[in-house]
Amino acid sequence: MAKGKVCLAYSGGLDTSCILKYLIEEGYEVVCFMADVGQEEDFEAAREKALKCGALKCEIVDIRREFIEELCFPAIACNAVYENVYLLGTSLARPVIARAQIAVAQREGCFAVSHGCTGKGNDQVRFELAFYALQPNIKVIAPWRDPVFYERFAGRNDLLAYAAEKGIPVTSTKSKPWSMDENLAHCSYELTQDPLSAPDQPEDFTIYFEKGIPVKLEFTENGQKKSVTDSVDVFLTANAIARRNGVGRIDIVENRFIGIKSRGCYETPGLTCLRAAHIDLEGLVMDREVRALRDSFVTFNYSKLLYNGMYFSPEREFLESSITASQKSVNGQVRCRAYKGSVSVLGRSSETEKLYDMTESSMDEIGDFSPAETTGFINVSAIRLKKYGQMKAAAGEKL
Amino acid sequence: MAKGKVCLAYSGGLDTSCILKYLIEEGYEVVCFMADVGQEEDFEAAREKALKCGALKCEIVDIRREFIEELCFPAIACNAVYENVYLLGTSLARPVIARAQIAVAQREGCFAVSHGCTGKGNDQVRFELAFYALQPNIKVIAPWRDPVFYERFAGRNDLLAYAAEKGIPVTSTKSKPWSMDENLAHCSYELTQDPLSAPDQPEDFTIYFEKGIPVKLEFTENGQKKSVTDSVDVFLTANAIARRNGVGRIDIVENRFIGIKSRGCYETPGLTCLRAAHIDLEGLVMDREVRALRDSFVTFNYSKLLYNGMYFSPEREFLESSITASQKSVNGQVRCRAYKGSVSVLGRSSETEKLYDMTESSMDEIGDFSPAETTGFINVSAIRLKKYGQMKAAAGEKL
Amino acid sequence: MAKGKVCLAYSGGLDTSCILKYLIEEGYEVVCFMADVGQEEDFEAAREKALKCGALKCEIVDIRREFIEELCFPAIACNAVYENVYLLGTSLARPVIARAQIAVAQREGCFAVSHGCTGKGNDQVRFELAFYALQPNIKVIAPWRDPVFYERFAGRNDLLAYAAEKGIPVTSTKSKPWSMDENLAHCSYELTQDPLSAPDQPEDFTIYFEKGIPVKLEFTENGQKKSVTDSVDVFLTANAIARRNGVGRIDIVENRFIGIKSRGCYETPGLTCLRAAHIDLEGLVMDREVRALRDSFVTFNYSKLLYNGMYFSPEREFLESSITASQKSVNGQVRCRAYKGSVSVLGRSSETEKLYDMTESSMDEIGDFSPAETTGFINVSAIRLKKYGQMKAAAGEKL
Amino acid sequence: MAKGKVCLAYSGGLDTSCILKYLIEEGYEVVCFMADVGQEEDFEAAREKALKCGALKCEIVDIRREFIEELCFPAIACNAVYENVYLLGTSLARPVIARAQIAVAQREGCFAVSHGCTGKGNDQVRFELAFYALQPNIKVIAPWRDPVFYERFAGRNDLLAYAAEKGIPVTSTKSKPWSMDENLAHCSYELTQDPLSAPDQPEDFTIYFEKGIPVKLEFTENGQKKSVTDSVDVFLTANAIARRNGVGRIDIVENRFIGIKSRGCYETPGLTCLRAAHIDLEGLVMDREVRALRDSFVTFNYSKLLYNGMYFSPEREFLESSITASQKSVNGQVRCRAYKGSVSVLGRSSETEKLYDMTESSMDEIGDFSPAETTGFINVSAIRLKKYGQMKAAAGEKL
Repeated sequence: MAKGKVCLAYSGGLDTSCILKYLIEEGYEVVCFMADVGQEEDFEAAREKALKCGALKCEIVDIRREFIEELCFPAIACNAVYENVYLLGTSLARPVIARAQIAVAQREGCFAVSHGCTGKGNDQVRFELAFYALQPNIKVIAPWRDPVFYERFAGRNDLLAYAAEKGIPVTSTKSKPWSMDENLAHCSYELTQDPLSAPDQPEDFTIYFEKGIPVKLEFTENGQKKSVTDSVDVFLTANAIARRNGVGRIDIVENRFIGIKSRGCYETPGLTCLRAAHIDLEGLVMDREVRALRDSFVTFNYSKLLYNGMYFSPEREFLESSITASQKSVNGQVRCRAYKGSVSVLGRSSETEKLYDMTESSMDEIGDFSPAETTGFINVSAIRLKKYGQMKAAAGEKL
Repeated sequence: MAKGKVCLAYSGGLDTSCILKYLIEEGYEVVCFMADVGQEEDFEAAREKALKCGALKCEIVDIRREFIEELCFPAIACNAVYENVYLLGTSLARPVIARAQIAVAQREGCFAVSHGCTGKGNDQVRFELAFYALQPNIKVIAPWRDPVFYERFAGRNDLLAYAAEKGIPVTSTKSKPWSMDENLAHCSYELTQDPLSAPDQPEDFTIYFEKGIPVKLEFTENGQKKSVTDSVDVFLTANAIARRNGVGRIDIVENRFIGIKSRGCYETPGLTCLRAAHIDLEGLVMDREVRALRDSFVTFNYSKLLYNGMYFSPEREFLESSITASQKSVNGQVRCRAYKGSVSVLGRSSETEKLYDMTESSMDEIGDFSPAETTGFINVSAIRLKKYGQMKAAAGEKL
Repeated sequence: MAKGKVCLAYSGGLDTSCILKYLIEEGYEVVCFMADVGQEEDFEAAREKALKCGALKCEIVDIRREFIEELCFPAIACNAVYENVYLLGTSLARPVIARAQIAVAQREGCFAVSHGCTGKGNDQVRFELAFYALQPNIKVIAPWRDPVFYERFAGRNDLLAYAAEKGIPVTSTKSKPWSMDENLAHCSYELTQDPLSAPDQPEDFTIYFEKGIPVKLEFTENGQKKSVTDSVDVFLTANAIARRNGVGRIDIVENRFIGIKSRGCYETPGLTCLRAAHIDLEGLVMDREVRALRDSFVTFNYSKLLYNGMYFSPEREFLESSITASQKSVNGQVRCRAYKGSVSVLGRSSETEKLYDMTESSMDEIGDFSPAETTGFINVSAIRLKKYGQMKAAAGEKL
Repeated sequence: MAKGKVCLAYSGGLDTSCILKYLIEEGYEVVCFMADVGQEEDFEAAREKALKCGALKCEIVDIRREFIEELCFPAIACNAVYENVYLLGTSLARPVIARAQIAVAQREGCFAVSHGCTGKGNDQVRFELAFYALQPNIKVIAPWRDPVFYERFAGRNDLLAYAAEKGIPVTSTKSKPWSMDENLAHCSYELTQDPLSAPDQPEDFTIYFEKGIPVKLEFTENGQKKSVTDSVDVFLTANAIARRNGVGRIDIVENRFIGIKSRGCYETPGLTCLRAAHIDLEGLVMDREVRALRDSFVTFNYSKLLYNGMYFSPEREFLESSITASQKSVNGQVRCRAYKGSVSVLGRSSETEKLYDMTESSMDEIGDFSPAETTGFINVSAIRLKKYGQMKAAAGEKL
C-alpha cells in the first residue's frame, strides 16, 4: 500500500531518475516537477522518461518571468554580489523553483517534497528553507542525506547499475553533469564563448532603467537598430549579447553556508552586463549618502541572505523595502560595450534626474557657492585632525 | 620686505607657475616642491623653470616606494574601492605627497604651504587635512580659493596673459592638461592602450602574496620566464602588463566630498590586476566570517576615508589594524590573464593555508561529518522561518 | 531705507533681543518667530518684548504635535541614541522649528532668516542645513559668526550694556541661561526631580504600541486608573511620570558635528521611558534577523543624521522607510516602573504577535523539532571552527 | 567492559548526578569536572556526591581570573550588549569553562566530554562549538539530545525516581533550580537586592581605566576610603556595591541562536556598573570617528559572536584586534553612583588624554578657529541638501 504522494524535483538526469524509482519502490506515489527557469532542456523527453519510470505525472512549470522579475531584477537593483565576485546565479532561481514545487505539491495532494541535492551543498539548504517557510508542515525527503540511500549508492557506478537493473534510460554524460544548476541567469561549467575566440568587433548596446529596473535594451542586429522592452526579452537579449562576447565567466573558491569552501566556474552573462550598467547609472542619479548607506548595508546583507537560502524570510521583506526606497531616482540610460570577455560603460544620461551638472564640477566655473567657503569647510573638518596631530606630536609618534 | 617663506607644490605647469610668480609678487619667498610619485615628468626641466620664475629652490623628492608600500599595498590588502568602481588612484598619492611637502617646508623654515588645487575639488581637502594633521599650526595658502586671485585669473586666458607678461614659459597644452593627477597607480585622461587595439594574444602572469601584500610577480618576456620581487618593480611590472593590454580604464560619475558629482575617466592598470588577484586569493585562504566582517566594514570605510582625505586620522590607524589582522592567512599565488581590456583569474593555490580541500566539497566523497547531520542544521535554521510562514498564512498573505 | 525683511528665531532672552535690535539698526525689517515645542515660556511676554524692541510682528507657532509625531515617534520606533547614551532631545526639535520658521519667512515675504546660535555649536548647523533644504535660495544671517557682531559683543557684559543703552528689558538670569534648548522631549540643565528626593513609592504604568508607535498610556492617579491616547497627551503624561521620579538625566561628554567635544547635562524624561518600553517590546514581537539588521544599521545612522542636522535629506527618507518596514509587528503593551531615577520593565505582552511561545522554549517540553536535530545544527556550525582549531594546533598556537 | 573515559561537566544538581550515574551504567568511566567561575557553590560537597555516585574523580578548577580578564574585560572594553539590553553574563563564562573542561579531559585521557545542557538552549551550542575548536576530534555526549535518554527522563519526576532508585542524594529544590547559569558576572533568577528595599543612601565609587580595562576601584567602607586594584578584587567589589543597591536586573525576551524566543530574568550587577563607566569615559577620551566605527561594527558583532558561542573562532581573533586598537586612549577615571536599582555617572576625568577642552566648547570663548569659518562648513555641507530641496520642489513634494 502506498505511503502517500511525494512531489519530486526532477531533472531528467541519472540521479533524480534513480531517486524517482527508489521512492516508488519504497512505497510512495511520485509526482514529478520540473521548473523551466530557462535552462536548455528537452522538457518533453524528460517528462516521458519520468512517466516511463513510474511517475504519476510530470508537471513542467514555466517560471521564467517571475524568476527574472522577482529575483533577478531586485538583485540588479541592489547590485547583489557574494564575496566580491559571485553574482548568485544559482541562488536566485531557488526561491521561485521551491515556490512552484510547493504549489504543485499542494495541488496534487502531496504530503512531502523530495529533491536530488547532495548533503554538502548549498542547494539543499536553499530549497528546504524555502519549503518550510512556504508550507511549515511539509515533509522533506532528501535521499542523499538518508544513510540507507547514500550508502547503497556510494558512487556513480552504483547509480548506473541500478538504472540498468531497473530499465532507466541513461542520458547523463561526463561532459554535461551539472545541468541542474543551469538557468536563464546562470550556468555552471556550461561555457559561453571563450573571450579569446569572441568577435573582433565590439558590440555596443544601451540599457534603460526605471526605478533601478531594466525596462528597455537597444542593440544592433545585422546593422539594424532594435529594441526590446518585455522583461524576459530584455534579459534574454542581454544574455545573448554577453554570451557571444564571452562576458561573465568566473572561476572562484567560495564559502558555502555549511562552512566549507568549494570551487566553482560560473557564467552569468546578461546579469553581469545589467548589473554593471546599473552601478554606473547610480553614479549619475543617486544621492551620495543614500548610496553609501545602501552599499554598506543592503547590498551585502541581501546578497548573503540570497546565498544562504533565506529568501522567504522577514529580513528579506525588510531589506527589499530598502532596495525599493533606494531606487526612486535610478532612472536613465547607459551605453555599454561588450568586447572579448568584458563589458565596459561608454556613457550614461538621465532625462529626469538632475544631480549632475557638468558646469558645476568644472574647474573654471564658479557656481552658487564661493570657493572661499571651502576654506571654512576644510578648517572645520580639520579641527579633529589637528588635535590628533598634536597628540601624536606630544607622544613623539610620527605620522 | 619678505612676508616669509612658503613651500609651494609645483607641477611645472601653467597654473602653479603663475601661482609661484604671484606669491613672489605678493612678497613671499617661495620654495618649490615636487613629489616624484611615478608620473611621467621632466623634473629637471620643471626645476629650471621654477628657478627661472624666481623660486629660492626646487626640491624634488622621490616617494615612489613609500607611496606603493604605505598606500597602494594596504589598499590592495583591503580591496579598497570607492562607489563600487573607483580604485582611488589619485587619493592614494595625496597623503605621501602632503607628508613630503611638510617635511620640505619644515626643513626650509617655511611658515606656510601652498598648492594649485581648485576650490571645488577633492584634492584641496585631501592635501590640507593632511597638512593640518602633520603640522597643526601650518598656514595654508590656496590661491584658487582667494577671491583676489581667482577673480583676477577668471579663465585660462588670464593665466596665459599673465605668463606672457611675466615671461613664464608656457608648455601646458590642451592635450595634456591634468598631468597633476598622474602617479604610479593612476592617471586621469592619460590613456593606456585601447582594448580594441591591444594585442591579440593574452598575457599570463602570476602574483604571489604574503599577508595580503604582493611580494612577487612572475611573467614572460620574449619567451623567457622572469620574476620581480622588489615592491616598486612588482608594481611597475603589473602596470606595464596591464597597460599594454588595456586593463583598468573606467569612465564614471562620482560623488565628491564637498557634495557635488563630477565625471572622471581614470586608469589604474596595475592596481586593477593586483586587487583582482588579491580578492581571488582571499576566496581560497580566508575564513568566511572574517571576510564577511572585513567586507561589510573595513573595505567601505577605509576606501571612504582615503577618498575624503582622512588618511592621517585616528580612524585610519584603527582601520589599518583591522586590515593587518584580516590578512594573516592571505598567503599564496594567483595566476592571471590580461587580455583586451580585462584581467581574469586562471587559478590560485597556497602552500601554507589549508582551508580548501577539494575532496571535502566534492559531490561523491563523505568527509568527517555525516550528510544526515545537515538535516538537523536545516531544521534548526528553519524554526524561525516556519514561524514566519505560519504568521504570513494566518494573515492571509502570500509568500 | 530698509534692506528687506528678515525672520528671526526669537527666544525672548538677552541674546536674541540684542540681535533683533541690531538687525533693525543694520537696516532690516524684522519678523520675530517663536516655536512652541513645549518649553516653559511666557510666550505673550516674549511677544510684547519683541514688539517693544521694534519687531514688525512676532509669530508664535504651536508645533508640539508635529514635533512629537514626526520626530519623537520615529526616534522611539528606531530606538535612536547618539554615542550610546544621548537621546537627541535637542536635535529632534530642530527640523520642525526650522520648517515652521521658513513657513513664516515665506508668508511674511522675508528674504532671509536669522538665529542666535553660537558659532561652535551643533544648532547653527542643524537649523541652517534644514533652512537650505527647505528653501535652497534662502539667505541666512548668523550674527554670532559675523566678526563685526561677535567682536563688538565679546562677552555677556557687552550685551547687557547694549541692552541697557537700547532700553531692552533684561530677564535672563544666570540660573536659567539655556532656555532655548528646552522642548517637550528634553531640557538641558533644567532639572527634573533629583532621584534622591524622588517619591519612595514606585510608579507603575503601561504603554501600548501599534507599529512601533506609542498609542496609549495607562497610569494611576490618586488611586484611579486612567489612560490617554492622544499623541501629545501620551508624551506629556510619560514626561510627567518620569519627571517626578527623576528618570532620564544624563551628564556626558559628546562629540559635536564640527569636531569638538563638549559636556552636557540633559534630561529626557518621557522619551527615556517610551524608548525603554519600545526596546523591550521588540524582544517579544520582532524577528531576530530584522532586529539585528535594524540595530546594526538603522539605529546608528538615523541617530547620527538627526544629531548632525541632516533631517531634510535623501538619506533620512531612505532610512525612514526602513524604520517603517521594521515596525510592522511591533504591536503590544509593556508594563513599566519608574522609581528613584530609573525606569524598569515589569512585563510585556501582545495580542496579535505570536513569535514567543512559553512552552516552546521551556526546558521540559519537546516542540515540533526533535532535540536530536540540534546535534546536526551544532556539528555543521562546527565545521568551520574545527578547521580553525586544526590550523591553530598545526601552527602551535593555543586557543 | 568500559567503553572509555568521559569528562562530564558536573554541577552537583539532580540532572548531572543522574547523567553521571547513567553514563556509568552505559559502560563509561566518568571524570567529573567543575569550573569555579565564582558561583556560590559548596564545591567539596559536590565533589563528594560525584564520587559517591561513582565518578573516578572530580576535578574542580578555579578559572575566575581568566574569566574576568579574558572575557569580562574585553566585553567591557567594547561595551558588549546583546539585543540592546542583555550583558551576556552566561555567554561570557562558557568559553573558559569549555577550555578548562577540555584541559581536564586531555589530562585524564578522556575520549569524550559530556554536559547536562538541554536540547533547545544556547549553552549546548556554546559549549560544543568551543569543544570542537579546542579539540576538533573530541566526541560529545549530550544526553538531553539523545532520544534514549530524554524519552526515559521525560520530566523531573522521572529523574527523581531514578535518583531514589540509585541512591543519589537530592538537594536541588524548586527555589534554586538554575544554579548552573550562575557566575561571577551574572546570575539568572538569583536575585540581588530589590531596588525598593535597597539602601536609602546612594553609594559613590570611582573606577579607573587603562586602555579600556578597569584597573582600580575606589569606594568607601564604614566611612573609610578604600581601593582595590587586582582584577578579581575590582570585579568582586563592583559586584558587591551594585548588588546591595539593586543594580543590574533585567527581565527580557531574547532571541536564541537556534531561532526561538525565550524569556529570561538576569542579573549582572558589577558588569552593569563597569560598562556604564567605560561608555562614559569614552565620551571624554575617544575620537569621534573611531567611536562611530567601533559602535557600528565591533560592539554588535563581538556581542553576537559571544552570544552564539563563536568565541574560539577566526572572527573573534579579528574583532579582538579591533577592540585593542580602539582602546589605546581610554585612560581615565569615572565617578559613579549606585542608588535604588540604577547606576549613574557623576563625572569623569583623564590625566593623559586631552581631547576635551572646556574653554574650547564654551559659548563665549573663541579658540583657534574663527566662527566665520563655520559658515563655509555649513554652506559646503548644504550643497547636496540644496539640490535635494530643489528636486523636491520641482517634483511638487513637500519636505
